[in-house]
Amino acid sequence: MAGASSPPSVPITPLLKDELDIVIPTIRNLDFLEMWRPFFQPYHLIIVQDGDPSKTINVPEGFDYELYNRNDINRILGPKASCISFKDSACRCFGYMVSKKKYIYTIDDDCFVAKDPSGKQINALEQHVKNLLSPSTPFFFNTLYDPFREGADFVRGYPFSLRQGAPTAVSHGLWLNIPDYDAPTQLVKPLERNTRYVDAVLTIPKGTLFPMCGMNLAFNRELIGPAMYFGLMGDGQPIGRYDDMWAGWCIKVICDHLGLGVKTGLPYIWHSKASNPFVNLKKEYNGIFWQEELIPFFQSATLTKESNTVQKCYIELSKQVKDKLGKVDPYFNKLADAMVTWIEAWDELNPSPNADAVVVNGTAKAK
Amino acid sequence: MAGASSPPSVPITPLLKDELDIVIPTIRNLDFLEMWRPFFQPYHLIIVQDGDPSKTINVPEGFDYELYNRNDINRILGPKASCISFKDSACRCFGYMVSKKKYIYTIDDDCFVAKDPSGKQINALEQHVKNLLSPSTPFFFNTLYDPFREGADFVRGYPFSLRQGAPTAVSHGLWLNIPDYDAPTQLVKPLERNTRYVDAVLTIPKGTLFPMCGMNLAFNRELIGPAMYFGLMGDGQPIGRYDDMWAGWCIKVICDHLGLGVKTGLPYIWHSKASNPFVNLKKEYNGIFWQEELIPFFQSATLTKESNTVQKCYIELSKQVKDKLGKVDPYFNKLADAMVTWIEAWDELNPSPNADAVVVNGTAKAK
Repeated sequence: MAGASSPPSVPITPLLKDELDIVIPTIRNLDFLEMWRPFFQPYHLIIVQDGDPSKTINVPEGFDYELYNRNDINRILGPKASCISFKDSACRCFGYMVSKKKYIYTIDDDCFVAKDPSGKQINALEQHVKNLLSPSTPFFFNTLYDPFREGADFVRGYPFSLRQGAPTAVSHGLWLNIPDYDAPTQLVKPLERNTRYVDAVLTIPKGTLFPMCGMNLAFNRELIGPAMYFGLMGDGQPIGRYDDMWAGWCIKVICDHLGLGVKTGLPYIWHSKASNPFVNLKKEYNGIFWQEELIPFFQSATLTKESNTVQKCYIELSKQVKDKLGKVDPYFNKLADAMVTWIEAWDELNPSPNADAVVVNGTAKAK
Repeated sequence: MAGASSPPSVPITPLLKDELDIVIPTIRNLDFLEMWRPFFQPYHLIIVQDGDPSKTINVPEGFDYELYNRNDINRILGPKASCISFKDSACRCFGYMVSKKKYIYTIDDDCFVAKDPSGKQINALEQHVKNLLSPSTPFFFNTLYDPFREGADFVRGYPFSLRQGAPTAVSHGLWLNIPDYDAPTQLVKPLERNTRYVDAVLTIPKGTLFPMCGMNLAFNRELIGPAMYFGLMGDGQPIGRYDDMWAGWCIKVICDHLGLGVKTGLPYIWHSKASNPFVNLKKEYNGIFWQEELIPFFQSATLTKESNTVQKCYIELSKQVKDKLGKVDPYFNKLADAMVTWIEAWDELNPSPNADAVVVNGTAKAK
């Protein structure tokens, strides 16, 4: 624990230590990890270095990590590297692809440990794990929020047949201090800070879309990983800052189709620095127009029952993107192709144990 | 303010004083009003006395109220009084019908003033009014909850075309101390108390049903009043404790159809006394089975575009209840008829200004 700026008051039990990777996209030295040391040090980190690959990124001592820069991505994926964004934090999804773990937590390098109203440091990762390991309730709203939290339950009128819930695929955490506003809102409210600690975790209901922020996000890679593609953003693309939004709309449609749950709320992290609203406006400009067409598209998107895996769902969705959004802008044709490339790359790095062999009573047999 | 057991620390500004009625169903003296005096005294109360009409209900001095017992209901509604439940708090909806105000707040007589985490008494009515007067966001989820609260806004990725929101029809408040559990949960967790103050107001998304509790509920009577029917419960009926649930499922389907919003969350009241779980089980028994069929029914219910008023929506829904739920139990045929009677009675007591006359430049002219 040496070097931790604020050691936690209680000993940490690292939940799912060997089943979870922390993915961090960055262009700078990772000094921010010092504050996270008590919580993150037991885990393995996957660092995705964006921008100039010749630059050296310092990682504080004592952390177990692997680091990939652009040269590594190109070497590992070959021509398929085209689906991984450059000069945009969307590149983080490469980390999801190379992980071999069941769970992913991803966090931005300008996010620090927040405190709850009692002044206690929040172990964000622990809360995400709790969210992921307990069921979601996408089919009916529970007015006391997460019925699986201590001291809560399903209220009167909640159908008993729905109380087993659904497996949780995604846990979306929030941010104190700098809220995740778009450029126009940043420009209009430069001084607004989020100071409201809402002590709730809730399931985003089936059929409802939400703006998924990638700053403080955890998910079950086995359940939803192949759909967590952050799109084509940044260098050479007409759009930025919609990487996580795109992923959020895709995963929500697919989770709804497959009967999986998406939670939002706790945990909070402390978001330290507002990005430049003028730079952001340039990145977001097209997205602000396009999202007006994207939302109705995703709201009405339906998948066939043949799409019974995340990969099949994602490929089916990519076709709909091409068919229906290609006319909004040619960019969406390129994006639809990249979605297919992403799945091909995912399957290459993550061969399914069932792809070439069937496991029968513990014995692998060729098909 | 004399007699208030705990005067509030700041002077109260009674919002919408002349536009809101407080509806209270009761079988006992209304001593609980003493604690609410600083908040409720400026408002008009409509007390619906349940049970024996010869009993005298004491109302603390200084409150402005009208009181209706069963004899009054029978006298005012004649044969249509059959749609108003007896020996069940469902009778409260008679108060919604006789009110002439735009807004209703209804509260149970075992609910007291709660305190927020800072120890301040919560003016529940004031929060409900704020909820009702600010728009809802049913079409897309905002991860920082109510974007119209101070210090909050729409987050990145929220479509700008949806930011004007929708008119709010219903504000559903929560309960500290005794949670609103069904009999089986009460039996299993007799000691569970709700101590978690969640500092949030949120819109129940379009297409999502929720368990609406009538204990601490406010609504815009002009927007949704005729759908706030609490059904046939209690004396002579095979079911109880589903009055508010029934209303909640009906109003949600209709609000979704008409583009109106339903909020839940703040304010909290202090719910003092758990009702008897054995008595409750007897009342709920049928409902526990039936709700398994009711939820899919309401989830798939759609209304035609000809149903462009709450009354028309409600009549259309009553037909679907008869068609599709009549086979679950003959009770639903009776309930469907009562839904029609309720609308007839509502329209009788609340003649539409447009029904027989058109107002042109302030002058009423016969059609």
